[in-house]
Amino acid sequence: MIEAQRVRMIRKPNGPLQEGDFTIEGLTLEGPGTGEVLTRTRWLSLDPYLSPMMRTWQGPDPCWALGIIQGRMVAQVEASAHPSFAAGDWVAGSGHWQSHNLHNGHDLRKLELEDGIPPSAHLGLLGSSGITAWLGIHRILNLRDGETLTISSAAGIVGGIAGQLAKARGARVVGIAGGAEKCAEVVALGFDTCVDHRHPDFPELLARAVPGPVDAHFENVGAPSLDAVLPLLRDRGRIALCGLIAHYLDDQPVALTNFRKLLTSAIQLQGFRVFDYPQEVPRALADLRAGLHDGSISLRETVTHGLANAPAAYLAMLAGQGSGKHLIAL
Amino acid sequence: MIEAQRVRMIRKPNGPLQEGDFTIEGLTLEGPGTGEVLTRTRWLSLDPYLSPMMRTWQGPDPCWALGIIQGRMVAQVEASAHPSFAAGDWVAGSGHWQSHNLHNGHDLRKLELEDGIPPSAHLGLLGSSGITAWLGIHRILNLRDGETLTISSAAGIVGGIAGQLAKARGARVVGIAGGAEKCAEVVALGFDTCVDHRHPDFPELLARAVPGPVDAHFENVGAPSLDAVLPLLRDRGRIALCGLIAHYLDDQPVALTNFRKLLTSAIQLQGFRVFDYPQEVPRALADLRAGLHDGSISLRETVTHGLANAPAAYLAMLAGQGSGKHLIAL
Repeated sequence: MIEAQRVRMIRKPNGPLQEGDFTIEGLTLEGPGTGEVLTRTRWLSLDPYLSPMMRTWQGPDPCWALGIIQGRMVAQVEASAHPSFAAGDWVAGSGHWQSHNLHNGHDLRKLELEDGIPPSAHLGLLGSSGITAWLGIHRILNLRDGETLTISSAAGIVGGIAGQLAKARGARVVGIAGGAEKCAEVVALGFDTCVDHRHPDFPELLARAVPGPVDAHFENVGAPSLDAVLPLLRDRGRIALCGLIAHYLDDQPVALTNFRKLLTSAIQLQGFRVFDYPQEVPRALADLRAGLHDGSISLRETVTHGLANAPAAYLAMLAGQGSGKHLIAL
Repeated sequence: MIEAQRVRMIRKPNGPLQEGDFTIEGLTLEGPGTGEVLTRTRWLSLDPYLSPMMRTWQGPDPCWALGIIQGRMVAQVEASAHPSFAAGDWVAGSGHWQSHNLHNGHDLRKLELEDGIPPSAHLGLLGSSGITAWLGIHRILNLRDGETLTISSAAGIVGGIAGQLAKARGARVVGIAGGAEKCAEVVALGFDTCVDHRHPDFPELLARAVPGPVDAHFENVGAPSLDAVLPLLRDRGRIALCGLIAHYLDDQPVALTNFRKLLTSAIQLQGFRVFDYPQEVPRALADLRAGLHDGSISLRETVTHGLANAPAAYLAMLAGQGSGKHLIAL
């Protein structure tokens, strides 16, 4: 029996998510029962894709209907009655936003820790974020040597890795990020340049920053970046639609002035999700690990300490503060 | 020397296109000079894709800058000083909206007329409209036996042919058209059913009309139909973006409430243009001709007589009047 802590939603947001929509509360976990694993959360992953579920209390896990948040985490096994896991094991998987979780084992995978790679990397670079970036570059866009790529939310974990993978692939990479500080960070990652979408002349600056027609675009944000990139795409250009962070917090229509360009330039726009390509994961992880070792890919984290601070840290991330992988350390 | 007539634009439209934006005027054609062909227009094709050029006076032909409309037509050679064409030949190609045109021959192809196929068919079923429909079904959507397809502007020439090709391919086909009369016409073409987008409960009626998740969608219109279809698409569904007739007449943003579905269901949206696939044309034409002969594809025309009536007929077509291929007979 463990006295645990949990972040839960106490009301459906009326408008934008607010800190007051969340509470932290105690709960008692019994077990583990036969076949179960009791884990202690070490790192909680703060992911934009959760926000639509936070708004609607609907998600793949039935507990969403109670306002209980189901996220991704790295944890250590506290006690196990499951043959595949033993106390002390490091694991990655999904669980509630709690200090401890009971699992049936299906939603956990054991981590082999390596020298020089912190366990938290399995939520970012060596987790869904890195795999998503790899899929976008190598499976969706099939990026080729010498092509020009634009990436929105370039200072974010997925955008940053995507840009570093694209540079390693021989592409010319133009980032889009919010503010001079983030743009400097994106350039430091190895992007050829980065344009500040908060600048009043953003579309013109972006047009001047690309060296010619854009072959491919990696979209993480939505209308603000997509509408600026569309006119710059070459005939039969490609768009990988990876995220829509600008549109997770409301139900307003996504309005694109340059939508017609999809037709007039015969563009392909492909939405994609990391879980559709399980067969690609080993190759993606091998590439990402190699990039980490040879220095072409950076490990970048924005860490907040303490489960109770998860709601505020989550909202700060959505507001564009910090960069790289956003994590709660417990 | 020939005294010819021409439809020309006399002002850039201020807002929607109006009949007063056009005039009919006389002009004198000299020639044909060496290498030139003088044609007499028999059939003028009224195509929605012209309307953005009518609004902006910008298009591939430099004469657009003078308000001179460049369209597709079927004509007869009046006099030729070009080795490949002789007086009396039937030709299809592009030319100005005129009773007569001078061509250098590059923009003309000679027609082999067949019994039972009127020359005007080379502007519709056996022209760009038919080839476009064929490409959408067979090259962009790669439609398979037993799949469910939705088509907007189903009473239009491209939509109607696309639906008939899809039925021949073994698909279940749900049309979207404006008004009960057009819907009846679409069902008469062999579509399984057709939903009236003017009905106040259109999205609900469409959801009820499809037998299950929609595998593929053929878009000719834009937001009004796309927003209703998006929620009905299956995971990893496909959209062929063939036309945006709802958005040719203004520069307003295209606003899609259900745009997020492209991401959450990993949809592929592919814009396409008929001229990108010249290598497919012989096969497309063979299939279309076979469909015409075996009765699985219908020849449908809305014909208006007289060049002077072209502007009014064009505006009526944009407003949704008539169905099938819209033509001016001269």
